Amino acid sequence: MLEKLKQQVYEANMQLPKLGLVTFTWGNVSGIDRDKGLFVIKPSGVDYENLKPEDMVVVNLKGEVVEGKMNPSSDTPTHTVLYNAFPKIGGIVHTHSPWAVSFAAAKMDVPAFNTTAADTFFGDVPAADALTKEEIEADYEGNTGHAIVRTFKERHLDYEAIPAALVSQHGPFAWGPTPDKAVYNAKVLEVVAGEDYHTLQLTRSNSELPQYLLDKHYYRKHGNNAYYGQNNAHSKDHAVREN
Amino acid sequence: MLEKLKQQVYEANMQLPKLGLVTFTWGNVSGIDRDKGLFVIKPSGVDYENLKPEDMVVVNLKGEVVEGKMNPSSDTPTHTVLYNAFPKIGGIVHTHSPWAVSFAAAKMDVPAFNTTAADTFFGDVPAADALTKEEIEADYEGNTGHAIVRTFKERHLDYEAIPAALVSQHGPFAWGPTPDKAVYNAKVLEVVAGEDYHTLQLTRSNSELPQYLLDKHYYRKHGNNAYYGQNNAHSKDHAVREN
Amino acid sequence: MLEKLKQQVYEANMQLPKLGLVTFTWGNVSGIDRDKGLFVIKPSGVDYENLKPEDMVVVNLKGEVVEGKMNPSSDTPTHTVLYNAFPKIGGIVHTHSPWAVSFAAAKMDVPAFNTTAADTFFGDVPAADALTKEEIEADYEGNTGHAIVRTFKERHLDYEAIPAALVSQHGPFAWGPTPDKAVYNAKVLEVVAGEDYHTLQLTRSNSELPQYLLDKHYYRKHGNNAYYGQNNAHSKDHAVREN
Amino acid sequence: MLEKLKQQVYEANMQLPKLGLVTFTWGNVSGIDRDKGLFVIKPSGVDYENLKPEDMVVVNLKGEVVEGKMNPSSDTPTHTVLYNAFPKIGGIVHTHSPWAVSFAAAKMDVPAFNTTAADTFFGDVPAADALTKEEIEADYEGNTGHAIVRTFKERHLDYEAIPAALVSQHGPFAWGPTPDKAVYNAKVLEVVAGEDYHTLQLTRSNSELPQYLLDKHYYRKHGNNAYYGQNNAHSKDHAVREN
Repeated sequence: MLEKLKQQVYEANMQLPKLGLVTFTWGNVSGIDRDKGLFVIKPSGVDYENLKPEDMVVVNLKGEVVEGKMNPSSDTPTHTVLYNAFPKIGGIVHTHSPWAVSFAAAKMDVPAFNTTAADTFFGDVPAADALTKEEIEADYEGNTGHAIVRTFKERHLDYEAIPAALVSQHGPFAWGPTPDKAVYNAKVLEVVAGEDYHTLQLTRSNSELPQYLLDKHYYRKHGNNAYYGQNNAHSKDHAVREN
Repeated sequence: MLEKLKQQVYEANMQLPKLGLVTFTWGNVSGIDRDKGLFVIKPSGVDYENLKPEDMVVVNLKGEVVEGKMNPSSDTPTHTVLYNAFPKIGGIVHTHSPWAVSFAAAKMDVPAFNTTAADTFFGDVPAADALTKEEIEADYEGNTGHAIVRTFKERHLDYEAIPAALVSQHGPFAWGPTPDKAVYNAKVLEVVAGEDYHTLQLTRSNSELPQYLLDKHYYRKHGNNAYYGQNNAHSKDHAVREN
Repeated sequence: MLEKLKQQVYEANMQLPKLGLVTFTWGNVSGIDRDKGLFVIKPSGVDYENLKPEDMVVVNLKGEVVEGKMNPSSDTPTHTVLYNAFPKIGGIVHTHSPWAVSFAAAKMDVPAFNTTAADTFFGDVPAADALTKEEIEADYEGNTGHAIVRTFKERHLDYEAIPAALVSQHGPFAWGPTPDKAVYNAKVLEVVAGEDYHTLQLTRSNSELPQYLLDKHYYRKHGNNAYYGQNNAHSKDHAVREN
Repeated sequence: MLEKLKQQVYEANMQLPKLGLVTFTWGNVSGIDRDKGLFVIKPSGVDYENLKPEDMVVVNLKGEVVEGKMNPSSDTPTHTVLYNAFPKIGGIVHTHSPWAVSFAAAKMDVPAFNTTAADTFFGDVPAADALTKEEIEADYEGNTGHAIVRTFKERHLDYEAIPAALVSQHGPFAWGPTPDKAVYNAKVLEVVAGEDYHTLQLTRSNSELPQYLLDKHYYRKHGNNAYYGQNNAHSKDHAVREN
């Protein structure tokens, strides 16, 4: 069942240690088959070196396990909420990558200070509010997803143009049209968070990019007029800005 | 004698360079057989690349060598004190990992700022007081252990729920139900110390987790209601909170 | 066509991941044949692990593709401007290396604080002004090159003695007599930017080298009286200071 | 001539890239045969991957080349001064390792903040004064050595108990009874400088170790009563404190 997607999700998971985004088992990637309404996710607490494609767990959009011998990631309810709220995404990744976690613990957005950010994120990557006591006790992982969704709604952000968020006190979630692209975005977020940290220490002041530079770099790689790369495949990956 | 435990302790020691926790020979792991009242520890000053399982030294709970051709780690008296004071631990590790040492030199706790910490440490990892002149001259390594034990007692901390400590001006000790799990905890401490450093620089203010988030993340992985991982083996590893 | 130069440019590009200067595809190296007035550059958005010498694209000094099946780097117009303005350089490299990007986002020069810098850069590596809205919209990549050239002119800098620049909000460009040497200079810039960051945090004050130390270290490696290395080949690589 | 020493010096040089202490060719190790009054040093500007034992250059204590096809390190006059002034040392290493360079550029000692330092350095590693214009122009590399020697004299430091120094604006030199031990000391200095930087940022205050802890850790590894390691060979390596 969904063997090809399992393979893709497996390979995207295996990118996490290769890209230096996980310690031990602290990360998970999922990918969705929108036609079938099912997603495939890493099993909980399995070491990357022992992971196999057939270990992937199949889950429906109510968050129920449909196939798989192992427990799915304990963050499965977060993935479920995000797939339901963000209908155009095809993959999600959660890590505890240390630069992003440092900003999450500080409850700070990862700002768009440089074109490395602007190539991927059309503005600051937002830090969703820390969960309340009630949210944590009622449905921790589900409410983690709702906090992200609420943040995008309240701040009028486009989830395709800013394909990542921090959850305050916790860490980063990233997504994209495919599991592979979600992992790419998670890596960009980690690199940019490290650069932003150092820029903030150097300046202790606002270093935000102007909108016209954000426009230039983002649309150089995304949308119908993209001219980076060999086939401008990016134009199919990402929708243009909504507002 | 204790060949299986020697192999376990050897393998746990070999994890230290692999996880980036040691430079040269600056670390040691031990593991205990509680029934026999004997523990096994790395020999002093031996390079990791030359270390063999049969080099491990067997020591009793008075700190006396029972078997072994080599000198045990010069930190053996610290391990002895900890095994006697903390009856439920099965393994201990000491390293000079640089983020933890940076906090130890600053005489600062490693705070619980994020859920990476909360997954393993049910609150701040305490920095034990620096040893006095008298303590250093009388029994340096033994008093290093006593400083840790005293800190847990005075601050009413549960050594199973917070399985690590810093010794001010010196560095980290971590422990756990097994040597392997002690090394795991030492790595978490190092990762969290690095993240905390950056969060502190970003905020210069208190970023402590609320108790309800600590509860959620800690008990998601530990105790009878844990639901992380495949067999909730964590519930057997760690006792629940005492107070 | 230009097979030997393609091989050189290919090899210089492959140095970027080896030296830790790129993430994903975020870098490009070019090299020029001055006699023919043609330069060779990495294709746009191709992974380093799939790159082959024959993928290199040949471009003339108007920035037009002369040979090659693939699109050239989207930064090709920047390279074109620099080759036209700086007639003695033979190779150019652009990366998003994180320490240099951190300074670029802060719009700060990378100062000459130590002899590691002075061995390669005869003074601070300048941060060119951020591009204006008009410059970005009219000809983004070309104006990126013009911003660098204008900075060198306005500040009376010698592009052979300071073979690199930052573009504010963006990142580093480096150059040299050969593609290989341009990559060397890009690596020195990254190392020095990291050291400078830490020195600035330690001192929060001006730590600029005096001119006489700059003279000594720079001319120990460059010019007719160089005495570093085996054949003082450096004397052929770099012209002496102009003013 | 001196084939065994050449092999030792070669191997000690090859430790530098392995320990992450050099970028490109920015480091050199030498070792001395005190009976013959000759030392062996790395040739100038040769890549580590191409270095061979027979490339090592033999130099006498006037700094004259006695044997070797290649130019010796351009820092040879510094080594010469140090061998003459510090009669008990057997090896010297110079690197541009980045944490030590960051402190050197800040003209700051690397303080003894933790026992990782105290195990090797019996107090702060001093930053020698920056060279004056006259010193640089007259005999740059020789005066680099004299600046170190003068610092030890003026501050009443024991070069065997503190086997390293920074040269302000430049970088670290370390030494020891053998070339291998000099490299070890250079690595300790780099690790400690990184830790000290972070401790300083955390505390912004004095975190100096008390003398009694320095005594304990230093003499645990050095001198007649050392008890670290297997054969207390350290007692032969290092003289005890002079004053």
